[in-house]
This record gives sequence, C-alpha cells and structure tokens, in this order.
Amino acid sequence: MEKKITVLPGDGIGPEVVASAIRVLQAIGKRYKHDFQLAYAAIGGAAIDQFNTPLPEETIETCKQSDAILLGAVGGPKWDNNPPELRPEKGLLQIRKTFDLFANLRPVKSFPSLLDSSPLKREVADQVDLLIVRELTGGIYFGEKKRTESEASDLNIYTREEIERIVDNAFKLATLRRGKLCSVDKANVLETSRLWREIVEEKKAQYPEVEVEHNLVDSVAMKLITNPSHYDVIVTDNMFGDILSDEASVITGSLGVLPSASIRGDSFGLYEPVHGSAPEIAGLGIANPAATILSVAMMLRYSFGMKEEAAEIERAVNAVFEDGYFTMDLAIDKDKALTTDEWTNKVIAE
Amino acid sequence: MEKKITVLPGDGIGPEVVASAIRVLQAIGKRYKHDFQLAYAAIGGAAIDQFNTPLPEETIETCKQSDAILLGAVGGPKWDNNPPELRPEKGLLQIRKTFDLFANLRPVKSFPSLLDSSPLKREVADQVDLLIVRELTGGIYFGEKKRTESEASDLNIYTREEIERIVDNAFKLATLRRGKLCSVDKANVLETSRLWREIVEEKKAQYPEVEVEHNLVDSVAMKLITNPSHYDVIVTDNMFGDILSDEASVITGSLGVLPSASIRGDSFGLYEPVHGSAPEIAGLGIANPAATILSVAMMLRYSFGMKEEAAEIERAVNAVFEDGYFTMDLAIDKDKALTTDEWTNKVIAE
Ligand SMILES: CC(C)[C@H](C(=O)O)[C@@H](O)C(=O)O
Ligand SMILES: CC(C)[C@H](C(=O)O)[C@@H](O)C(=O)O
Repeated sequence: MEKKITVLPGDGIGPEVVASAIRVLQAIGKRYKHDFQLAYAAIGGAAIDQFNTPLPEETIETCKQSDAILLGAVGGPKWDNNPPELRPEKGLLQIRKTFDLFANLRPVKSFPSLLDSSPLKREVADQVDLLIVRELTGGIYFGEKKRTESEASDLNIYTREEIERIVDNAFKLATLRRGKLCSVDKANVLETSRLWREIVEEKKAQYPEVEVEHNLVDSVAMKLITNPSHYDVIVTDNMFGDILSDEASVITGSLGVLPSASIRGDSFGLYEPVHGSAPEIAGLGIANPAATILSVAMMLRYSFGMKEEAAEIERAVNAVFEDGYFTMDLAIDKDKALTTDEWTNKVIAE
Repeated sequence: MEKKITVLPGDGIGPEVVASAIRVLQAIGKRYKHDFQLAYAAIGGAAIDQFNTPLPEETIETCKQSDAILLGAVGGPKWDNNPPELRPEKGLLQIRKTFDLFANLRPVKSFPSLLDSSPLKREVADQVDLLIVRELTGGIYFGEKKRTESEASDLNIYTREEIERIVDNAFKLATLRRGKLCSVDKANVLETSRLWREIVEEKKAQYPEVEVEHNLVDSVAMKLITNPSHYDVIVTDNMFGDILSDEASVITGSLGVLPSASIRGDSFGLYEPVHGSAPEIAGLGIANPAATILSVAMMLRYSFGMKEEAAEIERAVNAVFEDGYFTMDLAIDKDKALTTDEWTNKVIAE
C-alpha cells in the first residue's frame, strides 16, 4: 500500500521522538512492502518562529493532501508569554478544529515492567487497560468567550449531533474491546450533561451487547485512582476528558509511553504522544520515543487498517521493556539505560 | 460562650454521624463551659419526603437565626430519578447560594495509621497536608442554562468581585499555613481562567510572604497523584474544585474521615463531612463519624474562634486512630473494629 503522512515534529523533544518513530515506520514499511511517503511541515513554536503563526496555511495544505498526521509535541517556555493567538497550543486547537478531529482516543495500559514507577500500589495499578474517548472539537473549548473589565465568560455548548457522533464512536470501540462503557458527566448540575446522558440512553438500544454505566465526573476522578481496572471505555466531553485523561495517564507509571489518536470517523487522523515537549531534555538524545512509536502503531491500525503491522510494533515495544531496556527517564536499572537511538534500534531489531 | 447551631441530619448515615458529632460537641461544651444550642431542621431527601422540597423555607429561617450549620449528608437511590428541582443535591446548591457560602475549604491530610488503605504508595501519600479552596457559588454551576431539542448549553461566568473574594480568602489561609498557594485554571483555553490568573497576579502584591504558582487543571490532576505533598493551599473555581477536591480526597486513604467547611468570609459557615450518605450501611450503627466530628472541629475554629477546643477534638480523633481503633469500614485489625457509638465514646474519653 501507498500512504501519505504529514509529519509535524513541533518543539522540544518533538523532532527527536518523531525521527525515531519514523525509523520504526520505515522498517515496518520495508518488511510489509508499504510505501510511506512523508511530507514535513511546521506547527507550534517552531511555526511561530518561522511563519509568525502556530498553524501556517502551508501546513494545513500539506495535511489535506495526506492520509494521516504524525505530531511530536508543541510548546516551551520561549512562547509562554505570547498572546493567546501566538501560543503553540493554539496550533493544536486549530488543527483539531480544521480537520474536525472530534474523537480523541487515549488508551492507558499497565506495563508490568513500569509498575515500579507508578505512584499507585502495584495491586491497584496492575490490571489497568482502559480507553478514554474524549470529545475534542466542541464544548467549552470552542463556545463563545466574552470579556469585559469586570466579568469573563465561556459558553459550554453541545449540539445533539456533536454528542451523537462521539457517543456512537465510543460504543463502537467498546464492542471491539471488553464491551463496557462508562459515560461521564455532571448531570446533577449541567444542562449539557443532561442532554449527553439522554443521548447515551437512546444509543444503548443499538448496542445491546455493550454494558453502560453513567457516572459523575467527580466520582470518576476518585475511582480512577482507587479502582482504575474497573474501566474499559470511558466517554466524556472535551473539558472533563482533558482532566480525566491526564489524570489517568499517570496511574500506571507509563506516562512517558502513552500514545494518542485524534480521529474524525473516516480513516483520517492525527497521532501524537501524550507527553509534552519536555524542553529541559530537548536535544540531549535521551528522550523516550516509545509513546511516539506506539502512536505510529495506532496510525497503522486506525487510519490504514494495518492491524498486523500495528500489533508487531506494539509487541516489539513490549519486548524491549520486558527485557529491561529503558531510556534514561524510565530506567530502573541504570546499566540498561539507552539513548533514544539505541532504544529505537532495539525496537527495530525486535 | 453561647452559640446557636442549626443541625441538618439529612439522609442515609447523616443522622447517625451527626448524632455522634453532637455528643462530642456537647462534651467539649461542658468541659470549656460553652452553651451550644441546637435547632434541628430538614434538608435533602428527608425534606422532600416531608415538605416536597429539598430546602424548606422553615429550614432557611432556622439557619438564619443561628451562628453555624452542621450538615450530615444528602441523597440516596430513592430520589435519584426525581426531576432536578426535587433532587436532594438541589438543597445543597440552594443553601450554598442562599447563604452566600462562597468558599469551600477541603483539607486533606495523611493519617499514618490509615495509609495502608491508600491506593498510593506509602512514600507518595505519606506527607500530604493540603487545603483545597474551591469557589462555591459561581461559575458554570450557577450560570445560565439553555436547552432546546437539538442543543444544550451552560454558561461559565465569573465577575471580578467573585474571583477577588475567593482568591483573597485563599491567600489569607496560605499565610496561616506554609505560605504556598497554587492557583489552578485552564488559562490556555478559558477566558474566565485568564481573568482568574490576572486577579491572582494583582493580589500577590498584598501578600508578599506567599509564594504563588499558576498551574493548569490537567497538570494538577496528574500531580495530585504523583506528588501530592508538593501542595499547601490550592485555589480554584467551582467546577475544577469539585473534581480536584474529590480526586484529592482519596489519595491518603482517609476519604471516610475528611471534614469540610463552606464559609462566606464572616464567621458564619456550614460544616459537613466529605463522604456521602452511604445508604447501603445506613441504620446499622457502623458508620464512621470521624469526618463529622472533625467538621465540628472546623466549626469551632472558623465560626466560633475556639482554637483550643478545635485542636482538642483533632488530637482526640488522632489518638483513637493511633491506638488502632476504627469503625468497621476502615478497620485493618477487625478485633479493634467498633460501632459508631463505641468509637465516639473513645473520642470523648480522650
Ligand atoms: C494544550 C491544550 C490546549 C490541550 C487541551 O487542553 O486540549 C492539551 O492539554 C491536550 O490535552 O491536548
Ligand atoms: C451534589 C453536587 C451538586 C455537589 C457539587 O458538585 O458541588 C457535590 O459533588 C459536592 O462537591 O459537594
């Protein structure tokens, strides 16, 4: 197969981890005889420096002509005091909206070899295998904002269609997993949550094999810590999803290795590691590329339908972890700490 | 001193734990020669059953004539399918708004003897001693709500005054503790958060001894798990405060023993345990009254200025825990598991 991928290295460690992931991608391409064509473009701080905007027109055009996007990370202290329109994150928000990437998929899984670095007790973090499905292009993120001298406001607004498509997506994903769906809202306070809950209840009939529960966001914020293995698929709105997916990302000690996908229901999607741009270690060649490599695996699975290839990457990453090899940041046995490149070579060898 | 207290037992285990706390209060009153006058009134499900409203006029009147309110808990499956206006929680929201209880104080502290029941590793949960100050009468909870067939919305709105008073309160509390304040917002997305951050920056000058940091809500949701002892005072808006304070409540394994205060800047306030109404164990005499007893201690300190009396209660509760006595729910050594009444007697004896 021939596939076009737009590569957005971004800021900080973005370029390094993306370079590693591309090497893994090309190795898989060679083995399975796929032709992955890459086009590089700018986003975030790098784009601000070069084009004075976090998401240049050119980048949008390049993305439009491709089948998927691979993103490194954006942001850094250099741009922290810029006005809102010239912040690196603005590029992220715009690319999500421009390409209607309404479903953010954030899997969290325990790797036995990483549990020692989890803040949770081993027996609590042990069996975690959950997927947070966050609505990504609506809600309070994009509702009308107002500001006067004495007052500020943000409108949290959802249409029925926006909720239906994300909920539907989550139901589908639940059927491909363990068949459990937890819908998270604040229905005892918010009107948007009450509409959300109604729609989940309506959709239930179409997916009789999925077991559904509704839970309040405050209660889920607790249970993600006390009993995270309870969850299979969690679906929620943009703001709650932002908080809960970041909360969930630290429970298994594997924040540095978590991938993510932002999709729109057809095969197009954007893939990126969950971790940030880590400017403090950028350029040192010690960043951990696992999350970006696993994001490539998600791309192969969700955008290109290459299940076997995706599974092969995931198996290889797992195997290298099981062998006790980590990059500096995660290494427990410092003798087995590798550089970004060395670690990537191990994965490719596998 | 003579003080009038309105007692709102509420639902589930509410009446039991309140009865215990009142016994402790009267014991302290006797010892320090205070005259605590109690007036009982209805709230929540109990009020719905009796008066067809979760917050009867009569209850409001009784509260108005008192110096402080002690609340048990509200809610239960019996009322879960009621329309919004006839839900027990509505009584809570109304009493907060009616009495302008804009500052919700939620302390979280590790008790060494409870750390075994924490989901976090002992070394992570060990040194936690934080206070979340949540804005309680504004924001998306009380902004305009709209609903049509195809759309729903909630307005998140804050005035400068609303933010100023809560931020000021948090600064004051920080000066009484370790002098560190973390203000939590989502300033990279929300207009209300940008106003919030500006106001914190303005106030800083008045409290030069307080060390201030700003942090994003998603990032704090992670750090509360990975490094909770980093925090001293956390101040945030109503919605973020709801999520983060519940998240924080489980990290030390002491959810069942956490108190809370909702105050308005003068001496009047409402005090209640953080835990819910636990209908499944109501009436069995095994509920843990520690959180309500510690809420009485907060009342003595914040509403009546009785610092010594408050410290005495806290010391007694601590001592009983240190001796290894718990109620059934928390008991590690089942031989030392006591009933609600027995446990209360131990505290009073101390
Ligand atoms: C950078 C920020 C706007 C963004 C968000 O809140 O969506 C980030 O936190 C994320 O979760 O991808
Ligand atoms: C019952 C509910 C409305 C309430 C809230 O969200 O404020 C509760 O969760 C709390 O935190 O006291």
